[in-house]
Amino acid sequence: MVFGILGGDYRYKFLYEMLINEQNKVFIYGNKYVENTNGYNNIDDFLKEINILITPIPFTKDNETIFNIYNEILDINILIDKIKNNNIKILCGGVIGKDRIKYIEEKGIKVFDFFEDEAIAILNAIPTAEGAIQTAMQESDKTIFNSKCLVLGYGRCGKILANMLKGIGANVTATYRKQIDYAYINAYGLNSINLYNIENIINDFDFIFNTIPYEILDKNILPKVNKQTIIIDLAQAPGGVDYNCARDLNLKAIYCPSLPGRVAPYTAGEILKDALLDYCKNNL
Amino acid sequence: MVFGILGGDYRYKFLYEMLINEQNKVFIYGNKYVENTNGYNNIDDFLKEINILITPIPFTKDNETIFNIYNEILDINILIDKIKNNNIKILCGGVIGKDRIKYIEEKGIKVFDFFEDEAIAILNAIPTAEGAIQTAMQESDKTIFNSKCLVLGYGRCGKILANMLKGIGANVTATYRKQIDYAYINAYGLNSINLYNIENIINDFDFIFNTIPYEILDKNILPKVNKQTIIIDLAQAPGGVDYNCARDLNLKAIYCPSLPGRVAPYTAGEILKDALLDYCKNNL
Amino acid sequence: MVFGILGGDYRYKFLYEMLINEQNKVFIYGNKYVENTNGYNNIDDFLKEINILITPIPFTKDNETIFNIYNEILDINILIDKIKNNNIKILCGGVIGKDRIKYIEEKGIKVFDFFEDEAIAILNAIPTAEGAIQTAMQESDKTIFNSKCLVLGYGRCGKILANMLKGIGANVTATYRKQIDYAYINAYGLNSINLYNIENIINDFDFIFNTIPYEILDKNILPKVNKQTIIIDLAQAPGGVDYNCARDLNLKAIYCPSLPGRVAPYTAGEILKDALLDYCKNNL
Amino acid sequence: MVFGILGGDYRYKFLYEMLINEQNKVFIYGNKYVENTNGYNNIDDFLKEINILITPIPFTKDNETIFNIYNEILDINILIDKIKNNNIKILCGGVIGKDRIKYIEEKGIKVFDFFEDEAIAILNAIPTAEGAIQTAMQESDKTIFNSKCLVLGYGRCGKILANMLKGIGANVTATYRKQIDYAYINAYGLNSINLYNIENIINDFDFIFNTIPYEILDKNILPKVNKQTIIIDLAQAPGGVDYNCARDLNLKAIYCPSLPGRVAPYTAGEILKDALLDYCKNNL
Repeated sequence: MVFGILGGDYRYKFLYEMLINEQNKVFIYGNKYVENTNGYNNIDDFLKEINILITPIPFTKDNETIFNIYNEILDINILIDKIKNNNIKILCGGVIGKDRIKYIEEKGIKVFDFFEDEAIAILNAIPTAEGAIQTAMQESDKTIFNSKCLVLGYGRCGKILANMLKGIGANVTATYRKQIDYAYINAYGLNSINLYNIENIINDFDFIFNTIPYEILDKNILPKVNKQTIIIDLAQAPGGVDYNCARDLNLKAIYCPSLPGRVAPYTAGEILKDALLDYCKNNL
Repeated sequence: MVFGILGGDYRYKFLYEMLINEQNKVFIYGNKYVENTNGYNNIDDFLKEINILITPIPFTKDNETIFNIYNEILDINILIDKIKNNNIKILCGGVIGKDRIKYIEEKGIKVFDFFEDEAIAILNAIPTAEGAIQTAMQESDKTIFNSKCLVLGYGRCGKILANMLKGIGANVTATYRKQIDYAYINAYGLNSINLYNIENIINDFDFIFNTIPYEILDKNILPKVNKQTIIIDLAQAPGGVDYNCARDLNLKAIYCPSLPGRVAPYTAGEILKDALLDYCKNNL
Repeated sequence: MVFGILGGDYRYKFLYEMLINEQNKVFIYGNKYVENTNGYNNIDDFLKEINILITPIPFTKDNETIFNIYNEILDINILIDKIKNNNIKILCGGVIGKDRIKYIEEKGIKVFDFFEDEAIAILNAIPTAEGAIQTAMQESDKTIFNSKCLVLGYGRCGKILANMLKGIGANVTATYRKQIDYAYINAYGLNSINLYNIENIINDFDFIFNTIPYEILDKNILPKVNKQTIIIDLAQAPGGVDYNCARDLNLKAIYCPSLPGRVAPYTAGEILKDALLDYCKNNL
Repeated sequence: MVFGILGGDYRYKFLYEMLINEQNKVFIYGNKYVENTNGYNNIDDFLKEINILITPIPFTKDNETIFNIYNEILDINILIDKIKNNNIKILCGGVIGKDRIKYIEEKGIKVFDFFEDEAIAILNAIPTAEGAIQTAMQESDKTIFNSKCLVLGYGRCGKILANMLKGIGANVTATYRKQIDYAYINAYGLNSINLYNIENIINDFDFIFNTIPYEILDKNILPKVNKQTIIIDLAQAPGGVDYNCARDLNLKAIYCPSLPGRVAPYTAGEILKDALLDYCKNNL
């Protein structure tokens, strides 16, 4: 197993260091935070050395070039051509896209998309939850301890955030739509409320954390939110808040996407490293 | 809504009292713990009064007669004939059986099987977990606080038991087979071990709690368990322990089925009451 | 260091085994649960071998003879005469009494009274709390999870019990008299109430745990307690409940003294062992 | 009771608003964050209205003038002269000084120093702990969840911080000097280490939080700290770190005094408000 890290953000610096610390052979190319010290100075030399290629998260933003390679623009198709002519067995990255994954796999290369892996998503909920709590602490004049928190959504992120808020001493209410979630929320010692009934109690919270990826805090609900409440929106773009409406109402709503890489890149890198090594062990 | 409780155990005494306390009209017949005070003295009179019939848990043990009606034997088919000739709209109970449910529903009566309802199963995991902890406390010369506990299985019961043991100060390890469970176990601050690797560490625990409904603690594993370890088996019959082997090895393995009704019949009755009222509201 | 255990209860069996397991030289005499296997068959031979003597807890009940020596009655003064003529440097035990401690120390023997050591008392609060919880679980038809618990007193035992009840999912209120305790109760995430105001809310609890060593639940308060409430009294004799009054009112009040030795003798023995070794290291 | 707030920081804005919200009569003068709307425009008119005077925290920094009155310099002695000629019964503030308190009390005015009140100090440990956690989150690339944290000192702040860190999922070790603290640390489910033995394990922590008000992290200890470790110093000035040495070693040591007023002025104000009302009720 020879790993090659291509581009990427600060997480990949830690991923690089951790892979080395665990006695793996690793090359890196085009990452802003790590100097190449391996003697090659173009991507072709880099690709020749490796058999596991780690591409940026996300893979692309414009659907034409690979995202976030330092000082270089690299066409997606050119990269795919290059890798099929090399010794590469596994390609990893994030948000690669179904069609593209199929296309690459047809060339005999296995693809591991970090964003399609549910275990990674669950583990990423930990730095997401901590980042949400950090943001809430920064934005508020109150402590989270003893505050009233509403967590909208009880999926991966909602579960872990609600549990962490409780651990730090908040009074936490989580929302459910299904009776199963109602049961788990109660079994984990949290307060529960049906998502469709939040209107009546939403004015009672110091903090509202949203994890639901659609506009749940819309122009019907926002006017009922207390002016002192801090809204932290963790949902994927475009988030779960009508931000224009929030602004008009003078509500403090903060959009916090992609927290793991921003607030805890070491931990985020470690999660990727563990999943990557596990995948490679089972697939190489 | 007029409720009728037919037979049943101590939980149904509490169910009866709670339904009354919440201003429902309730009749009861053939329950050992509650006297009929409503003036009727046979089942026909009882059935005429009601439109929601609550039958015992389980519905039957011999597939011919209704289980646990005090001082009376009642044939299943006779009961079904009786209810279709009355005003009964909903029949509830536990472990009624798929074919029988279908047969009853064909007669225009809705059936709510407490044992098929996942929310009830999750909520029952709370008294199950507490009963398991109580049993462990009774059987051991050590405190659970600071002890090493292994929880086999991370389903409904494993999740809630592991969390409660942690809350009381144990050092808890839970087993996983899927990466998703591995991730949740870690995210909830527990130690994790792959179920297929327990052999190597199983001698290290003060308490082993099994929630897996097949013989996981078999003649290969049991000899590696420490003689001081207490094994608490929560799995449905026939449990997850080779009890003959455990006896030969002088291991303390305790089979603990159906804990909610035994250790916390009030709470178990309350769970049924909440689910029942919720079902009736939506189905009547 | 050669240890000699004289009499004592089940805890001393564990103390004996643990001292041996940690490679100490230990003799035992007159303990019901352990056979002497060291070849001596009277107390004089036993005392000759040792320099640290561990006497029963309590030291005496009748102020004349040593408590709880198996199959033997031993006069206190005779024992003290014997030890001053031997090689004994330290005498340990529980509730030895101030005057007696002074008298023994004048003979050049150091005395370590387990019951005068605050660290032991704090650590014993753990098995006490667990025993209280076990008793509450056994006595109640409800789960402790989600129940309302009142903890009277916020000393060593109250602090640790309240925290453990919270960990298992109870809704816990602790009482204070001083503002300092009020502050700590709140800082540890519990509800607080002034001890002098409990009258108004005492009917609201599923469980009342008393740790205050005087009759706090007296004939003025008890009539306001709910009939379903379980009272667990952990205070030292004579306890904190007017038991005659409780009986007349049909209240369930359970007196639970000396829990550590009864519910968790292994843990209780371990606490003594750690404290003993620590004391000996610093005093021999 | 008519309250008068003189100067002060952002906390006093919240104190002002809370006192009003609880239907108290309150005047304010010289606070940067609140406009006087009561019609008086000099301090003499202000003082005439009130009988409880709340002075800034700290009372003075130069021992001559009152600290932090907006747009005004006020001599301490002049203020004291003014208040004895008015209707003022109670003077509150922080760090007033023993001699000065005695001097004021001789004039028949009761003095309540917020900084001498232990309950306030305990409650302030909550926002202090949260501020420390927020700072640690901001400074680190790792999550606190699953990290190894060392808390130096187990007084008010150490107790509450250690407990909160555990609640958020950290692996927490606290230091003790006395056996009593050793016992409590263990009873609260934390790891313990004797303060004099930290040298051997100090390189093992992701975060070190100091609450001990003397230079515990000195030039002997600091070289053993890991370069990746974040040191958060919560001790009162001059703190517990040899900052010159830390800088030379390239260690990240952050001095965090007075967190409550900075990170959670609302909560800090609320703590003062509760204590103030309690004091006034008992002393007026």
